[in-house]
Amino acid sequence: MAKEKKLVEAITSMDVDFAQWYTDVVKKAELIDYTSVKGCMVLKPAGYAIWENIQKELDRRFKETGVENVYMPLFIPESLLQKEKDHVEGFAPEVAWVTQGGLNELQERLCVRPTSETLFCDFYKNDVQSYRDLPKVYNQWCSVVRWEKETRPFLRSREFLWQEGHTAHATAEEAEERTVLMLNVYADFCEEVLAIPVVRGQKTDKEKFAGAEATYTIEALMHDGKALQSGTSHNFGDGFAKAFGIQYTDKDNQLRYVHQTSWGLSTRLIGAIIMQHGDDSGLVLPPRIAPVQVMVIPIRQQSEGVLEKAEELRGRLEKVCRVKIDKTDKSPGWKFSEQEMRGIPIRVEMGPKDIEAGQCVLVRRDTREKTVVSLEDVENKVQELLEQIQKDMFARAKAHLAESIFDAHDYEEFKDAVTQKAGFIRGMWCGERACEEKIKEETTATSRCMPFFDKERIAGTCVCCGKPAKKLVYWGKAY
Amino acid sequence: MAKEKKLVEAITSMDVDFAQWYTDVVKKAELIDYTSVKGCMVLKPAGYAIWENIQKELDRRFKETGVENVYMPLFIPESLLQKEKDHVEGFAPEVAWVTQGGLNELQERLCVRPTSETLFCDFYKNDVQSYRDLPKVYNQWCSVVRWEKETRPFLRSREFLWQEGHTAHATAEEAEERTVLMLNVYADFCEEVLAIPVVRGQKTDKEKFAGAEATYTIEALMHDGKALQSGTSHNFGDGFAKAFGIQYTDKDNQLRYVHQTSWGLSTRLIGAIIMQHGDDSGLVLPPRIAPVQVMVIPIRQQSEGVLEKAEELRGRLEKVCRVKIDKTDKSPGWKFSEQEMRGIPIRVEMGPKDIEAGQCVLVRRDTREKTVVSLEDVENKVQELLEQIQKDMFARAKAHLAESIFDAHDYEEFKDAVTQKAGFIRGMWCGERACEEKIKEETTATSRCMPFFDKERIAGTCVCCGKPAKKLVYWGKAY
Repeated sequence: MAKEKKLVEAITSMDVDFAQWYTDVVKKAELIDYTSVKGCMVLKPAGYAIWENIQKELDRRFKETGVENVYMPLFIPESLLQKEKDHVEGFAPEVAWVTQGGLNELQERLCVRPTSETLFCDFYKNDVQSYRDLPKVYNQWCSVVRWEKETRPFLRSREFLWQEGHTAHATAEEAEERTVLMLNVYADFCEEVLAIPVVRGQKTDKEKFAGAEATYTIEALMHDGKALQSGTSHNFGDGFAKAFGIQYTDKDNQLRYVHQTSWGLSTRLIGAIIMQHGDDSGLVLPPRIAPVQVMVIPIRQQSEGVLEKAEELRGRLEKVCRVKIDKTDKSPGWKFSEQEMRGIPIRVEMGPKDIEAGQCVLVRRDTREKTVVSLEDVENKVQELLEQIQKDMFARAKAHLAESIFDAHDYEEFKDAVTQKAGFIRGMWCGERACEEKIKEETTATSRCMPFFDKERIAGTCVCCGKPAKKLVYWGKAY
Repeated sequence: MAKEKKLVEAITSMDVDFAQWYTDVVKKAELIDYTSVKGCMVLKPAGYAIWENIQKELDRRFKETGVENVYMPLFIPESLLQKEKDHVEGFAPEVAWVTQGGLNELQERLCVRPTSETLFCDFYKNDVQSYRDLPKVYNQWCSVVRWEKETRPFLRSREFLWQEGHTAHATAEEAEERTVLMLNVYADFCEEVLAIPVVRGQKTDKEKFAGAEATYTIEALMHDGKALQSGTSHNFGDGFAKAFGIQYTDKDNQLRYVHQTSWGLSTRLIGAIIMQHGDDSGLVLPPRIAPVQVMVIPIRQQSEGVLEKAEELRGRLEKVCRVKIDKTDKSPGWKFSEQEMRGIPIRVEMGPKDIEAGQCVLVRRDTREKTVVSLEDVENKVQELLEQIQKDMFARAKAHLAESIFDAHDYEEFKDAVTQKAGFIRGMWCGERACEEKIKEETTATSRCMPFFDKERIAGTCVCCGKPAKKLVYWGKAY
């Protein structure tokens, strides 16, 4: 039993040290491993399988809105990166440079893509000629590189996997529509599939993407009360089009600039799943994203007929969910700990007595609730329970979000809230960057977004400077 | 009509200039575009969609054999690349080097992965401890970079997409089994899905992978009689394990080295599809891999009811195949040319007279054969025809391969065959590298493989030096 306990004990409690708990979970649930390459990680099978499910579901939703997948080069020539002024200023300090190819120095340095706006622009410049060629609604799944100084698994690493959509439209209205549409695809995906409620809103100019006219964001709230930016969608207007010369001939034979958008979502979301739903026993995966939804664990598996019956059960469940069986020679207690650590939503326990009684036991990962069900009806019961878990996990996350939003009417209240509460702080803002900078410097909270659906004016004056307020802002400490 | 003709005329005939025909097809079928990054290309939607289908089908076949997907870093520290002597010699001359991260020079150069054996070894070194941890059967889908001097779309580019499997096993036998298993997965996939027959065999030592004990290959024969290496599977024995120190404790508590394999297949296969099946009207896609299998083209679409009926037909076909409808204002002739250029296996023509007669016309892309079918039975007919096309394309490719294999019994016959015939040349070999090198230098033909299933000794002496022969070799000019 000493060995069995070890697995669970090895995890730091989240209330004691949330950061250490997080690191323990990513390692013990075998999602990642560190590598010889500083700041880069290995996505192990259990981690990558979550990403595969994210890809599959998101890609399906993208394609329903007319998105087509493409693949652009990994490298960006320095001169191309420099074409849009704000963009290069935002990214140049954190890119990796290739200076040698084979045995020769390159004539021009190539950066490893930190994002691919410049490549798509360079492509659209030639590919778009007429209004008939529009819109272009392209996306790519790839990895990007940003030379971060401090890294944490999934949340910030020098290389990460993501998708980046890049679109070109005839009009400003269409570009705006697409920007909002994709933000909503992200938000719906997070809520419906990952059971993560999000606040949808606009970034302030200080926090928006380098080169964008407007950046929309979805912000999730982690278990520790910190915000996590979980997906962003940018409207570029015709800024990049002018920098790159992307023009089309309209129906009246006039040359016009296209209007562009981009939108991205990354493996960071796996960090969000962990920090939204996890507990002191490890990962808790929402059923819709879990690579394994049900683990069958035979009890007294050496007894005659148990393994056969368990295998038969697995075979039946395979038709309705993603199921595995743990037939290793570990003890049941050890297997339970592993299944819990890996966040598998349901475990099915079945021993000789259960078989005799024609039943098995379903144990929920999220609440640990046990239900004895008849073997006759097990497929239906498992499906119902998976749906129920998904629903309950979202409801709990929503309740947590709702009770973690605090109002601040002046700077004293604001500072108190930042130090004493864990969550979003709603506060009015005058619109000046100076106030945002002061708040960040003095409290470490940043403006997360100006919400779309929360239009309440909770005060008439800026929470920082006291001047007339323009916008309601969600502030918070963030990952 | 002038405009319509242009599309077809713009393609060079394959008999006039096969290389130019190939370049024309990849561009006109909108598979790729060139970029500002020398030697790198854009995979456009029509090209990427083929790769997505390859991925989907191959990934399914991999997982059936127990493969799990992971993701390793893009970068390899120079010291890691250098750990296995043969491997670094093979790859170092053609890698791209990152020397700067952010604003700082790196202390150690990082190469952009040309292949990831060294990263997997570095990972297995820590991840594998006991026989219980074996086997590891991992794969990743990613892009790799090789700084080629001369590039051609799909066939040879500085960056390309591929999958690379990397496995670790307790015994040499298991590693050998896996090496053969994956080669057969590749071969079956090529034959069953891409309708490309392949020769399965072993590479000579000269042609094997840098660091491998044995390399197995599948070699396809393109329309012009040149060979295309289409997938390779390598048995590393315990060479990498010794270089990297990958050891496990066996059941008797003895430390042992693991035995490893790797196997890869890339976007090069899209080049194979083009050159195996294409014709002077463009691409011809086998139905099982075609992103769009059927194109509905309404005739006289401005006539009342035609578009509605065509749309209704598309809706019905959607349930049994991947179908699109071309409702643009181009003429039918123009649409036919486009559908042919893109290699869509079936087009369905339907005009007012067809509707009146309750029928439509199915036109095969591969043979141009037309069949009038009743609308009542159209779903079945289309499905049958897709299967028939797949079968016929494979049969034709097989016949082409069979009639393109020539025997040479001595060096005169060999040289004559290389200059006068287009295809594989079967010739006996003494086993000496000197003969391989002489043949390559004097004839430009290389040893493609020592076949597994063709054991016939067609002579007693080496086709080059006349000394006693050891092996039958397939020789040929290759891409």
